[in-house]
Amino acid sequence: PTILVAAQLLEISEVYKCGGAQAIAALAYGTGTIPKVDKIYGPGNSWVTEAKLQVSQDPRGASCDLPAGPSEVMIIADEHADSAFIASDLLAQAEHGVDSQVIFISDSAQQLQRVRVETQAQLEELPRKTIALESLSKSLFIEVSEIAEGFQICNDYAPEHLILQLENSRKYIDLIENAGSVFLGSWTPETVGDYASGTNHVLPTDGFARTFGGLTTESFMKSMTIQELTPGGLQELGPVVETLADTELLAGHRNAVRIRLERLTLGRLSSKTLSEQQK
Amino acid sequence: PTILVAAQLLEISEVYKCGGAQAIAALAYGTGTIPKVDKIYGPGNSWVTEAKLQVSQDPRGASCDLPAGPSEVMIIADEHADSAFIASDLLAQAEHGVDSQVIFISDSAQQLQRVRVETQAQLEELPRKTIALESLSKSLFIEVSEIAEGFQICNDYAPEHLILQLENSRKYIDLIENAGSVFLGSWTPETVGDYASGTNHVLPTDGFARTFGGLTTESFMKSMTIQELTPGGLQELGPVVETLADTELLAGHRNAVRIRLERLTLGRLSSKTLSEQQK
Repeated sequence: PTILVAAQLLEISEVYKCGGAQAIAALAYGTGTIPKVDKIYGPGNSWVTEAKLQVSQDPRGASCDLPAGPSEVMIIADEHADSAFIASDLLAQAEHGVDSQVIFISDSAQQLQRVRVETQAQLEELPRKTIALESLSKSLFIEVSEIAEGFQICNDYAPEHLILQLENSRKYIDLIENAGSVFLGSWTPETVGDYASGTNHVLPTDGFARTFGGLTTESFMKSMTIQELTPGGLQELGPVVETLADTELLAGHRNAVRIRLERLTLGRLSSKTLSEQQK
Repeated sequence: PTILVAAQLLEISEVYKCGGAQAIAALAYGTGTIPKVDKIYGPGNSWVTEAKLQVSQDPRGASCDLPAGPSEVMIIADEHADSAFIASDLLAQAEHGVDSQVIFISDSAQQLQRVRVETQAQLEELPRKTIALESLSKSLFIEVSEIAEGFQICNDYAPEHLILQLENSRKYIDLIENAGSVFLGSWTPETVGDYASGTNHVLPTDGFARTFGGLTTESFMKSMTIQELTPGGLQELGPVVETLADTELLAGHRNAVRIRLERLTLGRLSSKTLSEQQK
């Protein structure tokens, strides 16, 4: 019901309840009840991911976002950060699923230890404790000799979500090369990105933040270039085209320009007249 | 040599001469002599295309443009167009390779016939006559009852290149949904797009213009979102996050906000002080 209310607020008038690889096929190719779409975005399990890959390689299918792996969070914090805040952010990620990726990096051994203790304490209170415990058991707590080293690890791992709880977190922005979405300072838990901060929540996982950004409005658009030359424009650019076509030994390419330039030189600009002459 | 001169003008200081699937692997992963790159763009044969597909599915690989099929041109022209210009544009495409796609659409039977004759005449003069003849033998000349029907065919086929030689070509732009790059009017042969008009020449083929545009500067960039909340910002957005986390039964998500809001309510804003208190 909450999703339907959100759809109504956004004036989305068509909603289909379906899932699995068959839903992807239905959307990509259309069925008697579901119309074909051009773009399919959003996460899914491994069957859905494979289906999305297949339809996106078919020009008659639909374009899709990147294959989505398990969700990931990396937190880089110094000794000044609030250990309880860090623990709550790690647990918010850990409760997602048993394969959630949770990494905490600090240059302070004390902070690492405090967060361990605090995480254990907060874990006890969570309804999804069993799930969180399993993903936490595979989490990494990394001590670095200086904070800059943490950003090297970050750029190699390319986390979906990166939280910085550092004194003056903003000054480290230039060190971030690869991350999906970044959360700065003590008062920006990753969960505000999930629900309310306004940034997109469909983000690259599994290291894809190295080469791709998250979903944007532009993901729903495509571009098309349109060009129109005037006779004078063709007289200016035409010789360049002829030269380059010659270097590629493509006489037909050159000819498409030459035949037009000859017409212009002859001063016969009206193509109407020309085609009538040819009759 | 011409490519090296172009590279120099563009201040490109590193050039590697290599090709085939092995070149794609070298670029995607790096070798002793070729450094790893993040993005690989440009056309190739079917081995190269498969290699690009494989490295683009590996987050440790590189992102690539779309699989490139044979080049395509569609021309829509009316009775007023210059038959010789149309023929030269069809032949410029046909000489590319034996699998080039050449489609000509008109609402004038006379124009279709004139273009057939003119194409045959110009073909005789081309050095790559054999190649052009073979791709022309598979070309389509389509007569439509009205020009609008031509655009329906265009949008279904989604050509890489679309040339409009119509009286007032511009007024038809709104009818074009799917095309890679569009060339308007008598003085804009497609070959100016290949070499000199300034639009990008790496375009979607094989129907991919339905969902994708051509290469742009943006293809070489990626986006990363960064957010930072003030304490007041969290007090404003926090309750929204808590409500939505509750609807998804994610107590850990809610907790990451609640623990911070509680700190703020207690009026203890300094995280430094807090972590010291915890000691």
